[in-house]
Amino acid sequence: MTIANETKRVTAALLIIGNEILSGRTVDANLPYLAAFLGKIGIRLMEVRVVPDIEAEIVDAVNTLRHKMDYVFTTGGIGPTHDDITAAAVAKAFERELIRHPEAERRLIAFYPPERRTEARMKMAETPEGAELIDNPVSVAPGFIVENVHVMAGVPKIMQAMLDMLKPRLIGGAVVQSRTLVVFAGEGDMAAALGQIQGRFAELDIGSYPFFRMDKPGTSIVIRGDDMARIDAAFAELEAYCASKGVETREELSLA
Amino acid sequence: MTIANETKRVTAALLIIGNEILSGRTVDANLPYLAAFLGKIGIRLMEVRVVPDIEAEIVDAVNTLRHKMDYVFTTGGIGPTHDDITAAAVAKAFERELIRHPEAERRLIAFYPPERRTEARMKMAETPEGAELIDNPVSVAPGFIVENVHVMAGVPKIMQAMLDMLKPRLIGGAVVQSRTLVVFAGEGDMAAALGQIQGRFAELDIGSYPFFRMDKPGTSIVIRGDDMARIDAAFAELEAYCASKGVETREELSLA
Repeated sequence: MTIANETKRVTAALLIIGNEILSGRTVDANLPYLAAFLGKIGIRLMEVRVVPDIEAEIVDAVNTLRHKMDYVFTTGGIGPTHDDITAAAVAKAFERELIRHPEAERRLIAFYPPERRTEARMKMAETPEGAELIDNPVSVAPGFIVENVHVMAGVPKIMQAMLDMLKPRLIGGAVVQSRTLVVFAGEGDMAAALGQIQGRFAELDIGSYPFFRMDKPGTSIVIRGDDMARIDAAFAELEAYCASKGVETREELSLA
Repeated sequence: MTIANETKRVTAALLIIGNEILSGRTVDANLPYLAAFLGKIGIRLMEVRVVPDIEAEIVDAVNTLRHKMDYVFTTGGIGPTHDDITAAAVAKAFERELIRHPEAERRLIAFYPPERRTEARMKMAETPEGAELIDNPVSVAPGFIVENVHVMAGVPKIMQAMLDMLKPRLIGGAVVQSRTLVVFAGEGDMAAALGQIQGRFAELDIGSYPFFRMDKPGTSIVIRGDDMARIDAAFAELEAYCASKGVETREELSLA
């Protein structure tokens, strides 16, 4: 059994592959889902890239991100058509042969009756040599893992199912804790105090997100960090500041 | 007056700056909007990156993307708080001084009455030396341009207004045309024919996007390119193929 290292910062990148995202035709839903999923198990999404279905672009992004992050997740480009080139690109990035994975082939043969077992569908059994499969309980065709790169489908329902399959293998570090104070004042009126509190709590990450609610300006202030006691202390300072200025506040259930 | 070059391919990247996107707290809405906006004027979004509020990450991404693309657009990090570091990072990327832009300062002073004219709000007048302003008709604090890098707000309403202000300055090339055929067959059943048509129309980009509608599998096939006559020819081949196989089809109004 693997134990999460509760003090280490574990990082991840998401590489979204597909012309349809860059053209605006498809709105990506995987980024926020993956961010929240990883956050809960102590893995921090630190970078996202979206690249087109161009092999050299995918190879470059995979090679940059896998050396920079603990985990890389990719979505998209593992279907049966000519524009599904992720497996070939990942093989190239790792300088491995692209092979037909025997177990993936077996699963596809078991699932598709002969008349639906097209050559194109069997292409979905291709992985870089030595890859491990990621189970796909939705539509059989698996994802795969090479070293720290996790190749998943782009269809959100399938991607989410693959993440569930992967979960026991992902080893997180310190889980980011947070508290959110909603403040009924403009961001510019809060900025000086926030900067001072941030200065006193350098290990925390204090973010401020302005909003308008019924034409009243407000700011959501999110205090994130590894240590809940420090977060509580910064939160108390923030509340005290608002009280001293007569600014209305409300704590919000904080999700991220 | 500038005239679009109707044969050149003009490219762009979007750099989304902000921890709130990477934590999943805020779902980005600027990518699909920008993609569609640029597509209509003949600028192709070719890459997107999301980076945290860390100066070195922003500097690296700006410098990579500005040399790779005709246009770079950034969103986020130009507000009044300590975590708004985009202007400073862009100045560093271009090795320019960060200055208080006189015209930006004038606008902020005119807008904010003295009691609301905080030092933090005046920080929103900072730009790299020699930057040109992007007007902000929503909330005054401007974006700015340095060479091919266009720095905009992250709040979608403001970002969209800034894009409208920028529009007369953006010089596109060939506008991507497209037609979409919805096919009531699985992607794997269409893949071989699609690959063959793609092979005969190498200058086009044929994408296929599977869906389920009332439990029936289908595939949206989008044919994109610069030349409508070639798109029509490929579309006709696709329709003929479907008719020969008795596959139900329907043309869909194609937006991207």
